[in-house]
Amino acid sequence: MDYRHRLEKLQARLRRKKIDALLVSQPDNRRYLSGYTPADHGIAESTGHLFIPARGTVRLLTDFRYQTIAGLETGLPVSTYSKGLIPLLKELVSETSIQRLAFESHYTLHSTSLKLVELGEQKKIKIVPASGLVEKMRLTKNEQERDLIRQSVRLNERVFQQVYRELTPAMSEIEVALAIETAMRRAGAEKASFETIVAAGPNSALPHASPGTQLIGGNRPVTIDMGLVLAGYCSDMTRSFVLGRPDEEYRRRHRLVRKAQKASIAAVRPDVSMKYVDHCARKVIAGAGYAKAFGHALGHGVGLAVHEAPRVSSRSRQKLKAGMVITIEPGIYFPGWGGIRLENMVIVTEDGCEVLNRDTTSLDL
Amino acid sequence: MDYRHRLEKLQARLRRKKIDALLVSQPDNRRYLSGYTPADHGIAESTGHLFIPARGTVRLLTDFRYQTIAGLETGLPVSTYSKGLIPLLKELVSETSIQRLAFESHYTLHSTSLKLVELGEQKKIKIVPASGLVEKMRLTKNEQERDLIRQSVRLNERVFQQVYRELTPAMSEIEVALAIETAMRRAGAEKASFETIVAAGPNSALPHASPGTQLIGGNRPVTIDMGLVLAGYCSDMTRSFVLGRPDEEYRRRHRLVRKAQKASIAAVRPDVSMKYVDHCARKVIAGAGYAKAFGHALGHGVGLAVHEAPRVSSRSRQKLKAGMVITIEPGIYFPGWGGIRLENMVIVTEDGCEVLNRDTTSLDL
Repeated sequence: MDYRHRLEKLQARLRRKKIDALLVSQPDNRRYLSGYTPADHGIAESTGHLFIPARGTVRLLTDFRYQTIAGLETGLPVSTYSKGLIPLLKELVSETSIQRLAFESHYTLHSTSLKLVELGEQKKIKIVPASGLVEKMRLTKNEQERDLIRQSVRLNERVFQQVYRELTPAMSEIEVALAIETAMRRAGAEKASFETIVAAGPNSALPHASPGTQLIGGNRPVTIDMGLVLAGYCSDMTRSFVLGRPDEEYRRRHRLVRKAQKASIAAVRPDVSMKYVDHCARKVIAGAGYAKAFGHALGHGVGLAVHEAPRVSSRSRQKLKAGMVITIEPGIYFPGWGGIRLENMVIVTEDGCEVLNRDTTSLDL
Repeated sequence: MDYRHRLEKLQARLRRKKIDALLVSQPDNRRYLSGYTPADHGIAESTGHLFIPARGTVRLLTDFRYQTIAGLETGLPVSTYSKGLIPLLKELVSETSIQRLAFESHYTLHSTSLKLVELGEQKKIKIVPASGLVEKMRLTKNEQERDLIRQSVRLNERVFQQVYRELTPAMSEIEVALAIETAMRRAGAEKASFETIVAAGPNSALPHASPGTQLIGGNRPVTIDMGLVLAGYCSDMTRSFVLGRPDEEYRRRHRLVRKAQKASIAAVRPDVSMKYVDHCARKVIAGAGYAKAFGHALGHGVGLAVHEAPRVSSRSRQKLKAGMVITIEPGIYFPGWGGIRLENMVIVTEDGCEVLNRDTTSLDL
């Protein structure tokens, strides 16, 4: 990845916005700009920050535990803090002629922002909340990124198919989830991009069920929602199926969701609103009288994060752009009966979209 | 768990602090107070909030995806938001006579705090940042919690011993990590409490190494740092060893770390300062000329979170109390050579401590 180019682009943007330096705390943004991989242990335990002056040397700030890997991975100069971020920032601010220091409002704790404001008062500099500066750069993917995402999707499908072939009604949800996550790691994935969802029977009516000890069973709805991280880039796919013979009601509902998915995919092209893409699937489902059973948004962006901008929802005001990578995942859920969700990923192209998924398992009943 | 009692205790504290309601966003705090288990997908994707008025009915606020599980798990009334948290909060504030609404400053994004302040202006109520109200309750563990932690430690050790018996020099770090995490889940753990660390050779000089494809190898330092979650409660243990025959230098350094660990464990009892417990291990290591090789704090609290208060460090101003559960984990790291860290967990008792670990693998060389 051309981290230098990305950093220079961001620095130019900072200069236009009259920001003297930006503190980058969001882990995916850090990785996007520098290749630094260690994930935070939750927002309260950061593995590092990028200190990006509008002009001059970008630094990686971290603690003792990560100083070696930080240097190895990024090639950037590393400054180590032993007493926390704020004292080190004070030094950096003193050494440079920073008047306006920006921080990522959308990935900085309120408690940390109070400390930054205090630092600003002490050093007589302005502390500026900023949002989405780096996310905006991540919104469309270049060819290299699109290719990594294709590979991530491909590997995810291979893992799914391998596990699907060996499914039996006597396996528990957790056993299946475990088989999937083990196969992912053996196949070379960094990790699962989120906790694998394996939900059978009534559990599948919970869009975000946690896999439990109950058995998959035959002749009832099963949903598997899974994704992995490969070289930083995420995949995300959902299949709903029945082991055994789906009854007529299942088939009818499943075909409806697939029809809704296809309607939205057909609408994807640059300059179309997110709202409209969401609407296309929703209209199909509402037409069958199931409007209330489809309670979530249609999709979301995928890249370094498995959930990232844009949101493909009725509440979005954004439009599609070439190079965006999004999921199309309508679903309907019936308490007591179960649910059906079908999720594919697409790249928005100049004249439509490229559907990344090739897996057809139980897709067209 | 007696969630009702915990909520009542917190509500009484809110009344004393003249807070009319507290919005709880921190996932472990949510679980501690209500039993609600779904983890956030990062702080920007919350799976819910507790709305805790100083008097009256506690509510769980969440979205469509979690409404069913929220009700099942907590028995609390669930309010579902479709347009995000803030509009729902506005309704709740209007329905009740809240004048001062507190939020968790240490687990609320700066960008969210701006929206809360705006809500406060619209509704003419005061928005109050609060920190550590629930964490303070979690600082010491009652008998039931201590017992769950004991079981979590016991299971973690069983998994370690099972995998350790089958280790060979030809296994890769990632293969070992995978074997551990699979064994954890098969044994009934909810999940690993953090990404398992398996670091061999020079990698073991990185305190927080990610397992890679390199082989464990024989006759060189290996560190395994692992923990699991059982019924919500975490364990955390580190063992350093050599497959084959450790040389004299390894033995000497390993014995030093063990001696440091024992020195700190011997110092644990109520009213002793964290600083002093940290100092006891550090003194032993500094005495051998390795002060700079021990670059991290001695330990941390463990409970619903694998890293929680108190910090057992030279920078802490806290004192130990009976019922705290902490790790004692001195370590020394030499770039190019490797590292040694030994971590056990202890419960602070009235007159000393109970060491929770029984595993003695490569502990006393």
